[in-house]
Amino acid sequence: MNAPTHTQGQTAAVSTAAAKERVVIFDTTLRDGEQSAGASMTFEEKLAVAELLDEMGVDIIEAGFPIASVGDFEAVSEIARRTDNAVIAGLARAISADIARCGEAVRHAKRPRIHTFVSTSPIHLKYQMNKTLDQVIEIIHGTVTQARNLVEDIEWSAMDATRTPIDDLCRCVEAAIRCGATTINLPDTVGYATPEEYEAMFRSVIERVPGADKVVFSAHCHNDLGLATANSLAALRGGARQIECTVNGLGERAGNAALEEVVMAIRTRADILPYATGIKTPMLLQASKLVSTVSGFPVQYNKAIVGKNAFAHESGIHQDGMLKNMETYEIMRPADVGVKATNLVMGKHSGRHAFKEKLKELGYELGENAFEDAFKRFKDLADRKKHVYDEDVEALVEDEIATIGENGRVMALTVIAGTGGPQKAIITMDMGGTHVTREANGSGPVDATFNAIRSIWPHEAKLSLYQVHAVTEGTDAQAEVSIRLEETGRIATGRGADVDTLVASAKAYVSALNKLSVRRQRSASEVTGAEPVRVGERV
Amino acid sequence: MNAPTHTQGQTAAVSTAAAKERVVIFDTTLRDGEQSAGASMTFEEKLAVAELLDEMGVDIIEAGFPIASVGDFEAVSEIARRTDNAVIAGLARAISADIARCGEAVRHAKRPRIHTFVSTSPIHLKYQMNKTLDQVIEIIHGTVTQARNLVEDIEWSAMDATRTPIDDLCRCVEAAIRCGATTINLPDTVGYATPEEYEAMFRSVIERVPGADKVVFSAHCHNDLGLATANSLAALRGGARQIECTVNGLGERAGNAALEEVVMAIRTRADILPYATGIKTPMLLQASKLVSTVSGFPVQYNKAIVGKNAFAHESGIHQDGMLKNMETYEIMRPADVGVKATNLVMGKHSGRHAFKEKLKELGYELGENAFEDAFKRFKDLADRKKHVYDEDVEALVEDEIATIGENGRVMALTVIAGTGGPQKAIITMDMGGTHVTREANGSGPVDATFNAIRSIWPHEAKLSLYQVHAVTEGTDAQAEVSIRLEETGRIATGRGADVDTLVASAKAYVSALNKLSVRRQRSASEVTGAEPVRVGERV
Repeated sequence: MNAPTHTQGQTAAVSTAAAKERVVIFDTTLRDGEQSAGASMTFEEKLAVAELLDEMGVDIIEAGFPIASVGDFEAVSEIARRTDNAVIAGLARAISADIARCGEAVRHAKRPRIHTFVSTSPIHLKYQMNKTLDQVIEIIHGTVTQARNLVEDIEWSAMDATRTPIDDLCRCVEAAIRCGATTINLPDTVGYATPEEYEAMFRSVIERVPGADKVVFSAHCHNDLGLATANSLAALRGGARQIECTVNGLGERAGNAALEEVVMAIRTRADILPYATGIKTPMLLQASKLVSTVSGFPVQYNKAIVGKNAFAHESGIHQDGMLKNMETYEIMRPADVGVKATNLVMGKHSGRHAFKEKLKELGYELGENAFEDAFKRFKDLADRKKHVYDEDVEALVEDEIATIGENGRVMALTVIAGTGGPQKAIITMDMGGTHVTREANGSGPVDATFNAIRSIWPHEAKLSLYQVHAVTEGTDAQAEVSIRLEETGRIATGRGADVDTLVASAKAYVSALNKLSVRRQRSASEVTGAEPVRVGERV
Repeated sequence: MNAPTHTQGQTAAVSTAAAKERVVIFDTTLRDGEQSAGASMTFEEKLAVAELLDEMGVDIIEAGFPIASVGDFEAVSEIARRTDNAVIAGLARAISADIARCGEAVRHAKRPRIHTFVSTSPIHLKYQMNKTLDQVIEIIHGTVTQARNLVEDIEWSAMDATRTPIDDLCRCVEAAIRCGATTINLPDTVGYATPEEYEAMFRSVIERVPGADKVVFSAHCHNDLGLATANSLAALRGGARQIECTVNGLGERAGNAALEEVVMAIRTRADILPYATGIKTPMLLQASKLVSTVSGFPVQYNKAIVGKNAFAHESGIHQDGMLKNMETYEIMRPADVGVKATNLVMGKHSGRHAFKEKLKELGYELGENAFEDAFKRFKDLADRKKHVYDEDVEALVEDEIATIGENGRVMALTVIAGTGGPQKAIITMDMGGTHVTREANGSGPVDATFNAIRSIWPHEAKLSLYQVHAVTEGTDAQAEVSIRLEETGRIATGRGADVDTLVASAKAYVSALNKLSVRRQRSASEVTGAEPVRVGERV
């Protein structure tokens, strides 16, 4: 990556298509996003997200935090191996073992990056680290040098930069650049900055630090006060040329800057913003849906760019202005972000060939067995549901993919429910090859179903989230259920889809149990010798 | 309300507690929020929201668009009569009949306001209105004068102000001020502006228009590019002293500026922002929940301020930094926005008195019959659910309130479901005093239940949204179901709560049908003689 030219104070007047400066998009959905409470993803889910991000044109994918667990390490390594275009970054604290482990994970990438960080703000130095600024600068020297000996592309972050006095910050940045950092990230870790402050910080650091013109400056914003997108754009004005963001704004607390908002703001306001990104914007909605599904974090209807209502004008009323001229009320075309009309795909008479074509069109390639299973389920669905839409096929295939390699699987379920009570469920599960049937009562059909599962597969996990939404419109729509289970120190999300809400619920619950058991095995194998990662030890 | 002093260019350095300028909060949840696709509220829901907004310290409540329907007119009138503190505004197009009707609706308020608007941008003038700027200025003269003859407090909005050439905008604003407008709103109708542009627009208009120092300028931002909060703050810097916003950022497309974000940004960054609002911030979460419930719009976990994760740090991991010093990672205290620990309230042995006290604490006052019904349901719930939390009581009471005055009501339900199929439901409903029982099959238990309801209460409405979430944690939690039904030109949202998801679904569906029938009656009685309101005819 080339260092950017810092054209501070560039105004709208001088911006033309030719003058656009390239802004690199650093996606941290798999690291900062995945670390947000309850959003954990499986290995397979991470690979799927990384593949989509790469295809969408993300410049740098932060794939994980390799020292955090064997699972994280493996995900980063595998993504590094598989990715065609994007730079693959891993996160490392300012600890020798972290950096070594991170280097090991990213080294198979065509373009590897180590991203290492340390706190620079007085409040973090005092309460979190118990170190002086001089000690921190020593640490920067040691760790950035170590990282630079492993790979060429080093990003260094000043954690809590926005609450760091500018003189301290400049000293730290100077040290990092001197030791070979190629990207300097100045994160607003606690989501505290206003656009003016954030712009001024970048401007000052870039003006004052020797060698600043040789590196790329990066913005990393959190949305605690609703300012993450504006702060990201302000950073560009201050001279930053990399933006760190996540799909759907997933991330700790109120999340990170949303990739789709930053990218579409730059694109929509090309008339005054002299920047360009490499993102294929028609893939934004697909990325949003995938990340929402694997994280179990729904996107609110009125979410900018990717919300269900983002392009909706009150329906059923004569859309006068809209019909006369689209631009009267819309500043983006729905197709620019991947919104398309729902397509009726096929019915019960569609055959294998048509189904395979449809899967291909939707971006799925299944192995022979998985395809046969999916086709069987499609035929079953077509028998039960009047119209089968693209979204139905997507839900079905994703449900199929989610169950691959699971220890337990739902085979049959019967539920008797209603106001009469007690509600009763009889479930048959395949537990590693053996079919087991159990019956249980409960408060409501969902509780009864989960109790029956628990009697087959005992566990202590607590249900911390249960939600259902219909995949398409109509009362015969498939239901997609998301579930979050928690047990000491671990969170797992499961999902299931079926026209029967209760069957979907059972599948989602069992899928979460499967993930939880994978997670238990992983924590048992956590890297020994490494200092444990604690909350807040991230940018 | 007094005109603000425009202290342009005021810097952080001069800001002290004493120097804070009062920013008035204009809430349009009941107008712009309620008009967003699918978010319609009933009369009772609007009254409840208005009451809470007034108690929370909102300065101006825009209660509706009186000419739009008899229902809107009645809601605005009733809110005007009941509200103790806030100014009550109604919206009116630049049409004589609109303004007269609006004046009629708000006149009972202690402090009434008419808010009238007209498009000023070339694109709207050409495609929507087919008028010249001179004609528009003529219209402003006529309509603002008419409004001023009805009430003292007049707000005038330049629809699509951010896409209006500054000279045109100044001419329009000058006309509005000359005719007696006391607040001038310059909305970013299409969510297009960047903070710098928006600030500059206010600064120019205020500097150039004669009489600008005698009125309050107002910002109204939409979040299409994720910049609504930043734009609202930028407007203050440019001289605006009123911010128009909605709870949860509800509103057309990606919504309006979120009240909670704007208010908390001003409060949290009091060190550099020389403003203050009158909002009681510990009520923000309660307002968010109420608006989410009545609109049927869920709030995403990573929503700033009011999302479930807004104050969540990954649980189950030792929260080192947090324990050492709260400020290391949090810039706001959860209690400041009303987040409190979930309380275990009571069990099956709690009596009437304890239940009444709890209701009072949660802010509910029920009539004797409603209380007895709620108490009965509480006892039933306590029998079925191990722990009864505040949220459970809230769901139960809100469900109770939602069914008051309904034509149809679910009495009993039995469902047989599972993988065996076909799924079957037997439902008994009270239809205006008569009990009717029907049975139906369906694709899944929810479809079967809805088919059974449809056979008792025939209708053509289509289900466009179905979602379920658990009210509290645990498998025996109550499920809260939201449903959206659409029929030509009408949308209705229903909700229901029960430990049995299917019973909750049936209630939600019937509640939506009840609302739809109310809506049908209303549209049948729409004001004759008025020009129909079309999409986009709002600020």
